[in-house]
Amino acid sequence: MGNHMVIGVDLGGTHLRTALVDLSGNLLERRKTTTDIALGVTQTAQKLVDECRAQMETARELGGTVTGIGLGVAGKVDRKRGWVIFSPHLPAMRDYPLGPEVEARLRVPVWVENDANVFGIGESWVGAGRGIPNWVGLTLGTGVGGCLFLEGRLWNGDELGFAAEIGHLIVHPEGPPCACGLRGCLETHASASALMEFVRNAAIRGELTSGPLYELWKDGKLKAGGIYQCSRAGEPLAQKAFARMGWALGLALANLFTVLGIRTAIIGGGVSAGWDQFIGPLHSSLAEHSSMLVVADARIQPSALGDDAALLGAGRLALQRQGVETAR
Amino acid sequence: MGNHMVIGVDLGGTHLRTALVDLSGNLLERRKTTTDIALGVTQTAQKLVDECRAQMETARELGGTVTGIGLGVAGKVDRKRGWVIFSPHLPAMRDYPLGPEVEARLRVPVWVENDANVFGIGESWVGAGRGIPNWVGLTLGTGVGGCLFLEGRLWNGDELGFAAEIGHLIVHPEGPPCACGLRGCLETHASASALMEFVRNAAIRGELTSGPLYELWKDGKLKAGGIYQCSRAGEPLAQKAFARMGWALGLALANLFTVLGIRTAIIGGGVSAGWDQFIGPLHSSLAEHSSMLVVADARIQPSALGDDAALLGAGRLALQRQGVETAR
Repeated sequence: MGNHMVIGVDLGGTHLRTALVDLSGNLLERRKTTTDIALGVTQTAQKLVDECRAQMETARELGGTVTGIGLGVAGKVDRKRGWVIFSPHLPAMRDYPLGPEVEARLRVPVWVENDANVFGIGESWVGAGRGIPNWVGLTLGTGVGGCLFLEGRLWNGDELGFAAEIGHLIVHPEGPPCACGLRGCLETHASASALMEFVRNAAIRGELTSGPLYELWKDGKLKAGGIYQCSRAGEPLAQKAFARMGWALGLALANLFTVLGIRTAIIGGGVSAGWDQFIGPLHSSLAEHSSMLVVADARIQPSALGDDAALLGAGRLALQRQGVETAR
Repeated sequence: MGNHMVIGVDLGGTHLRTALVDLSGNLLERRKTTTDIALGVTQTAQKLVDECRAQMETARELGGTVTGIGLGVAGKVDRKRGWVIFSPHLPAMRDYPLGPEVEARLRVPVWVENDANVFGIGESWVGAGRGIPNWVGLTLGTGVGGCLFLEGRLWNGDELGFAAEIGHLIVHPEGPPCACGLRGCLETHASASALMEFVRNAAIRGELTSGPLYELWKDGKLKAGGIYQCSRAGEPLAQKAFARMGWALGLALANLFTVLGIRTAIIGGGVSAGWDQFIGPLHSSLAEHSSMLVVADARIQPSALGDDAALLGAGRLALQRQGVETAR
């Protein structure tokens, strides 16, 4: 049978990434392609199957065998059945048996999990969460994902289909409307969408009338990365957007630490690349909003694995579900 | 040695209650006396020792032996050493070795725990939490205490000296100042102090100028119980105080359920007697602030044991720490 290997998959709205992972948490091969859900669910599933087939071929060339596939998907999943219940970036994939579908085509067992959870599993295995029993994880992207590790294990609560939905913690009851229907969720302050919305609203209100940030907005090219560059360059409105993000993250983490009696957070996701622009305000806000925690004890750490966290986590998920002992 | 028995103690700012508890969670004898911390720490400790001696005598008469004492104290405790670090209602008892002191005098092992935690241990043993693996507990009194049960066990987090401090969850960042130094904590909305402060402020602002509630305030007799009676009688300001309390509880529980992926809360403490005046607003607020939870799945339950929860919980703590198997 050769060496035990698994495939970790990160399925997003615009990209599909896969990796071949061994028992020690090494990434033996990475593949990346685009997804276009507009082409339909069947074609997206087909692409996923093709990418996995290519990885299985690579495994054979390396003298190994793929024994399982772990699949991280943004949104709500039914992990027991392997179904995608609802994915904000893959709206056509509603109540879709993605796991069973891929499993039937490849004849390899498939496990489906929320993308923030596979991020956490990866960081917990070989990243910033290694050896830390209790911590919260945040992924800052288009939205804000969350995961919770308690006593070294991913916390799933009462298995209600959600847990650690930290992006939907309400940080201000009169805050901006959220895609989820509530007001003032962390996600409305600390995501790429929130940064863009903040700048857009200022431009519409006439509070931003010139300069590179204004140009980006006017040209319809406003993205989180551009706002970050403007913030670094000293543009006040961009700095305000990141300060507000740090404020909300600090308040949410203070509340989490107060309730859980813990002190560690690990922050990843694309928008966490703006670390230098929000970490100061985050620490100030954490100090301002912590009741019991000695703030010097808090540990707010960036992801150690970046984009690889979800791939490694999805791989480890497949190993764990097979009951395979992993190294490290 | 006879039957195994323990003493559960609930030490508050005005009262000292003790109970003789057996392995099945029966209360064999209750005693109650007053405390007056103004008389000094030594005298309070002496009273505690005297009450426990009386319970040990009763145990002997019943053919049993007291093998341990569990001590619930409001405030921050060092459970490993059995010290009271700080108790808001017993301010003189700062950094005081209450456990070792009582242990030395009675020659029976003593364990000290936060009062909201012993409430939870009691409810988990023979009360509303029995058989429920994951739930949050709230005690509504002068302040708001909290406890958290995960997988059937009291959650202590990273053992930082606090956990489940749900009273200090921030429900509104611009809310009223809290005794803890923050703004907008749950405690500033949902405690006896919060109810009184709300009415007092309205009276001072001239928004309450007549009627029984006004009379209570004017005569310096404003208490949570009186506000409750006025609310039941239809007094709008009193109803508003309870509606605000329910709103804050619903928001805090929605945030907790979102983060923990759970759906059960158990609410006790003296102010929970006002249940009929806050439960409606609580449910509305929970529905308004829940992102992922199907609100019909939520279970918000009153304490089943009332004042006995802390006594039974303190007793069970002593049994657990001795490694004694309990019935039920």
